[in-house]
Amino acid sequence: MNAMFSRMAVIGVGLLGGSMALAMRHAGLVSRITGAGRSHGNLEKAMELGIIDDFATDPAAAVTGADLVVLALPVGAFEETAGGIAGSLKKGCIVTDVGSVKGALVERLESLMPEGVDFVGAHPIAGGSSSGAAHARSDLFRDAGLVITPTGRTSREALGRVRALWESLGARVSEMDPHEHDRVFAAVSHMPHVAAYALVNAVAESGCIDNSWKGFLDITRIASSPPEVWRDILSLNRDRVLEALKLYEASLSRFRSLLEGADWDGLKKEILKAKEARERLENN
Amino acid sequence: MNAMFSRMAVIGVGLLGGSMALAMRHAGLVSRITGAGRSHGNLEKAMELGIIDDFATDPAAAVTGADLVVLALPVGAFEETAGGIAGSLKKGCIVTDVGSVKGALVERLESLMPEGVDFVGAHPIAGGSSSGAAHARSDLFRDAGLVITPTGRTSREALGRVRALWESLGARVSEMDPHEHDRVFAAVSHMPHVAAYALVNAVAESGCIDNSWKGFLDITRIASSPPEVWRDILSLNRDRVLEALKLYEASLSRFRSLLEGADWDGLKKEILKAKEARERLENN
Repeated sequence: MNAMFSRMAVIGVGLLGGSMALAMRHAGLVSRITGAGRSHGNLEKAMELGIIDDFATDPAAAVTGADLVVLALPVGAFEETAGGIAGSLKKGCIVTDVGSVKGALVERLESLMPEGVDFVGAHPIAGGSSSGAAHARSDLFRDAGLVITPTGRTSREALGRVRALWESLGARVSEMDPHEHDRVFAAVSHMPHVAAYALVNAVAESGCIDNSWKGFLDITRIASSPPEVWRDILSLNRDRVLEALKLYEASLSRFRSLLEGADWDGLKKEILKAKEARERLENN
Repeated sequence: MNAMFSRMAVIGVGLLGGSMALAMRHAGLVSRITGAGRSHGNLEKAMELGIIDDFATDPAAAVTGADLVVLALPVGAFEETAGGIAGSLKKGCIVTDVGSVKGALVERLESLMPEGVDFVGAHPIAGGSSSGAAHARSDLFRDAGLVITPTGRTSREALGRVRALWESLGARVSEMDPHEHDRVFAAVSHMPHVAAYALVNAVAESGCIDNSWKGFLDITRIASSPPEVWRDILSLNRDRVLEALKLYEASLSRFRSLLEGADWDGLKKEILKAKEARERLENN
């Protein structure tokens, strides 16, 4: 048997957890996959789709004997789940995740791991507005970014195995300090989600939303992500998101002042600045 | 000759003006097309691409003898251009446009028209981040929204011809009062452009923009539109944009308060509200 892992447990067989399981199975990286989660119907669906081989409703039962455990619930449930499974993790097991918040959460999860078990934080930059095992796709991570967030406590061996796993799935892997990760993603992802939610709500309030056009659907696409997932991300990364939001509110307020003051040259300059910054990104 | 118009003058042969000329030519709606504009190089390119048959650098010369004149410059140049061509317009000519601002501008343009010439405002909901004749496409308006903004002064015949023209190009035509148009588009398009510009600038300021991912490119796509075009739109529709911006800032500030107050149930409700409003749109 050449599989990288013999038994994997996926806690939360949703879009990310389900896709990771499917991709690992297709790549021959794992021999047996056990699911766990809150919705019995979703787990049945995951069995039916061949994503998992069996499931347990109790995560502690699901992880028994596993050499790879993936936390794929909304991040708000990570700590309680890690606490609940800790006693059932076998020595040598690697616990990892697919969550969008790292920072202090990684340290708390590390401290919950028993002797001989490593936690390695990972954040795939992938997803979509559809959730649940039914939408899992084995190619979800192909060419997607994947940030691993090791700490001083992470064993080089566990880190190497998690990196190899994701590289085998076609992800572009990078490493980042967990706190730096949260600062970066507050700015480029978490706060922009808030901006999109607030925009949809404001346009809905204006009473004009039914006249919106394709461009509006584009810029608000991320507002379709699951509410629970995003409530958890925003709550766990609150301080960084508030900092990024402050920058955004100041930037908006600059636009408002230029409009109020009819400073059309100044307005054109701010617009040009945005256009150029965005073009640099597209050409990256 | 069955063409709807015998001679068309396009003032501003950019993405919109050029695409309209190309589409009309392909549909056999016009016999001869003269371009005018500020960039000689762009007009040469438009000739080369078969978008126009000839051009004049003076718009007044370009419109001489035309039975259809299209204003396709940035909206800020409409009034001066209309004033400049008024004396050269022949009786029976229809003047229309492809601008994103209507309202009082339509009334000012109407008042500049000589006896026997009708102005009919039109706004195609199409475009892109590329500009210039080189990017013109004859299918740009197929299935695109097209809002005509007649007033009490618009002749039924001229209105009917402009409607028929756009329907022949495959656009989905609707009619709206010019002032209502500006209120609606301030909310669903003009203010969201400001939101996107401000977002790009804020994320650039955070120093993290190079870590941004595909979703960020989606939500900021409209920030790539030409700065001059958008400076003009925002300046001409300033009051409505400021009203819409006020709603947006209040909506953002609600999110900030929920984060500051750690009101996670309230946050989830606001997120859900946005998700549901957006899903209704997608299903429209």
